Amino acid sequence: MNSSAPSDLPTLADLWAAAELLGPVAVRTPLVESPGLNEQTGGRLLVKAEVLQRTGSFKFRGAYNRISQIPLEDRGRGVVAFSSGNHAQGVARAAALLGCPATIVMPADAPAIKIRNTQGYGATVVTYDRLTENREAIGAKIAAETGATLVKPYDDPGVIAGQGTVGLEIVQQCRDLGVTPDQVIVPASGGGLIAGVSIAVKAFHPDCRIIVAEPDGYDDHTQSIAAGKPVSINPGAATLCDALMAPSPGEITWAVNARTLAAGVVVTDAEVKAAMRRAFLELKLVVEPGGAVALAGILTGKVTGWGKTTVVVASGGNVDPVLFAGILTETD
Amino acid sequence: MNSSAPSDLPTLADLWAAAELLGPVAVRTPLVESPGLNEQTGGRLLVKAEVLQRTGSFKFRGAYNRISQIPLEDRGRGVVAFSSGNHAQGVARAAALLGCPATIVMPADAPAIKIRNTQGYGATVVTYDRLTENREAIGAKIAAETGATLVKPYDDPGVIAGQGTVGLEIVQQCRDLGVTPDQVIVPASGGGLIAGVSIAVKAFHPDCRIIVAEPDGYDDHTQSIAAGKPVSINPGAATLCDALMAPSPGEITWAVNARTLAAGVVVTDAEVKAAMRRAFLELKLVVEPGGAVALAGILTGKVTGWGKTTVVVASGGNVDPVLFAGILTETD
Repeated sequence: MNSSAPSDLPTLADLWAAAELLGPVAVRTPLVESPGLNEQTGGRLLVKAEVLQRTGSFKFRGAYNRISQIPLEDRGRGVVAFSSGNHAQGVARAAALLGCPATIVMPADAPAIKIRNTQGYGATVVTYDRLTENREAIGAKIAAETGATLVKPYDDPGVIAGQGTVGLEIVQQCRDLGVTPDQVIVPASGGGLIAGVSIAVKAFHPDCRIIVAEPDGYDDHTQSIAAGKPVSINPGAATLCDALMAPSPGEITWAVNARTLAAGVVVTDAEVKAAMRRAFLELKLVVEPGGAVALAGILTGKVTGWGKTTVVVASGGNVDPVLFAGILTETD
Repeated sequence: MNSSAPSDLPTLADLWAAAELLGPVAVRTPLVESPGLNEQTGGRLLVKAEVLQRTGSFKFRGAYNRISQIPLEDRGRGVVAFSSGNHAQGVARAAALLGCPATIVMPADAPAIKIRNTQGYGATVVTYDRLTENREAIGAKIAAETGATLVKPYDDPGVIAGQGTVGLEIVQQCRDLGVTPDQVIVPASGGGLIAGVSIAVKAFHPDCRIIVAEPDGYDDHTQSIAAGKPVSINPGAATLCDALMAPSPGEITWAVNARTLAAGVVVTDAEVKAAMRRAFLELKLVVEPGGAVALAGILTGKVTGWGKTTVVVASGGNVDPVLFAGILTETD
């Protein structure tokens, strides 16, 4: 695919342009910390609270940046996206703000809160059966019929540049705190967020280790790092992390991540739940399972924080109340 | 009491001094909002997320400011405080940061999380029976025996000035957003937070309405506004809002609040729970019952937000996981 050629990769300049565009509409999410978590990790642990982003996840950033790039004459025909939830909400909200109709193809078993919110942002939701139907085909059919532009969830330079504004803010906020990040841990599904964050952080802190966090059974990035080339995992494993179920890195995202990722960390559902409980108790933040894998990576000690300044991205907070309540009342 | 004489009331200059002192140690908590809550209220609703403050509530601000005022030669003898929980944690943490021993007198039936956290911050906790023992007497006895300085929960100019930094940040953050607050709703127990916020907000926005939010059965400020003088309520009513059970306004706090409060709003436990659920879903914030009364005041429509810019303070997030889980799974 030509679009994965290095010349097409998003650059730091693309991230700055996205940051300028997003300035008035996105939340500059805070970098939060707590004495309890610092003590637990033996270092300084800074949590980038993207749960406080519009639509409850970082996905709004990439969607808004990408939709802004659609020529005005094409926007009236709308956008189409397929997503298990957070990208859906991000695209729906961004499209509404930019006056553009949106159709979102979502799995019928996506968390109810994500489907409801997507509709609430004004998008048309088309559901499909995850086991028997192909969402790409459904999306392509809608695009062909309506002339809508497909907004990919991660494998798009405009989307990656938007997500990269998370990284620019991390750099700026660390500078404001007078600290240098030793390592940044970021959840990955298709790898768009971590690719964008990598570009920003590596530009200012070339020695900072960028670590990808993934759920058990969906460790395609971690396997790809070991193999030195993109690896697809066998999908179908059960995971609580509905947001992180992509079976392989994207082409463009991997072209970035292959150069920037230092290591991967893989966490179990039980470890994710423990991290969600710690975020509740120590940070007063609602973090969804997929949003908590990076935090779990360090709280388990699988990535050591001893004596280091670690930034983790808490990437989303869209979790069904009943599921969250059940996790809160379990014990470690 | 001489200390309630107008000449002793905290001034805007005291708040600025507190802000300078707190700058390096307190969290500048964000002002968050969501399209869903804006839509529900028909205006712009900005939530000052003090749940993200150190120790999970605004109380850290006043405690740190007050303890900083203790002469160095007296700090070694420590501080003593009585509190149902959030003031306890604020004093414990502030004292630890300032290298000062702390003894906290807490009711035996305070939320377990608040007792545990207070001990975790390094303080000695002494419990008492809320029905048969007098916490003031216990605190006074400890102070007399050890020479420790009593840090009052609200009726102290240094404490009020510290809490007032919440108001200074609201003014600055509204300016950054380009909006003028029409009304600010603040929870009250003894009234220290709202007194401090009043001083800041009224200095810059004299027409802004300051509204006090209280739980059913503990509406002493609302009754005091109606009576034009401080009124004590009959304590003992059941409430979910363990943080807001003071039976009457403080002397110093009322000397401020009598001049600044425009109205009161009183909410039920059911309304508080609904507000906590909305904060979970829309803001991804964990808000404790007492911290949610101001949000409940506007979400119920008891205070109208139609066409207005409203700021509400979400003052604390220290809630037991099992209680929170139960509230999440109830339906409105």
